[in-house]
Amino acid sequence: MPKLDLSAIAQTNRTGYPPPFDRPVQGRWYRRLAPASGLTAFGASHVVLKPGAWSSQRHWHAGEDEFLVMVSGEAVLVDEDGEQVLRAGDCAAFPMNDGNGHHLQNRSAQDCVFVVVSGGTNQGGDYPDIDMRFTADGGYVHDDGTPYEARRIP
Amino acid sequence: MPKLDLSAIAQTNRTGYPPPFDRPVQGRWYRRLAPASGLTAFGASHVVLKPGAWSSQRHWHAGEDEFLVMVSGEAVLVDEDGEQVLRAGDCAAFPMNDGNGHHLQNRSAQDCVFVVVSGGTNQGGDYPDIDMRFTADGGYVHDDGTPYEARRIP
Repeated sequence: MPKLDLSAIAQTNRTGYPPPFDRPVQGRWYRRLAPASGLTAFGASHVVLKPGAWSSQRHWHAGEDEFLVMVSGEAVLVDEDGEQVLRAGDCAAFPMNDGNGHHLQNRSAQDCVFVVVSGGTNQGGDYPDIDMRFTADGGYVHDDGTPYEARRIP
Repeated sequence: MPKLDLSAIAQTNRTGYPPPFDRPVQGRWYRRLAPASGLTAFGASHVVLKPGAWSSQRHWHAGEDEFLVMVSGEAVLVDEDGEQVLRAGDCAAFPMNDGNGHHLQNRSAQDCVFVVVSGGTNQGGDYPDIDMRFTADGGYVHDDGTPYEARRIP
């Protein structure tokens, strides 16, 4: 039936980020909902951020829209323009190719939970705070184009 | 900034449904979030169901995936297989062309709130409980193909 049994969907904190960029997302525990539920038109992930964890390195996508709904707890959304606190019921939108790197930080003492939807086509993007970009073929490169060995996790 | 100011986005209970099918959705108050926030890869709506209201007539889409996150309150999800109660944090997925008509009913005494995302291409679909289908060109027809005058609201 359509309601998802989240407890039956595998949860992982894997990341493709090379060190040391992987450290802030060690407390990011996510479930990929689309493959588990037959959705193909967009992706959807259920994410738990432990205290101190980040949702990702601050980034933007050249070809993918992202949209999130906060479910519980509290996170700080950081982008080029500053910070905004997100609480249960808040929504945030990240249009493709806006060049405005964003991420969430859980600065609270409790878990926070959000659901994020992603659609479009991977055309790469940038992490403006670090010497890394991501590419349309699923890799990571330095800002000068030299590749990292690490690969993104689909 | 990326956090949406929901109070600044127009809320409406408009429907294209012809009478009497419009009655159960009179208490469905929604905001279209994608045009308000620059998203183009998928649609997103913030929906408040007043007590007694339905999210729609029970339906399925031939070419569009739908995915929802319950934000607050309680709704009953009805599909071909029965009923499931949805509460804050619950997620539900409706893959395109599954032939499994679904909708939400607010049978509680309080408002319920959910966010629903939709992606793919409109190829029409069916309302299995009533003498109506919706078409790829944005119209409604009887099950025998005779058109209704009413048109869907994009």
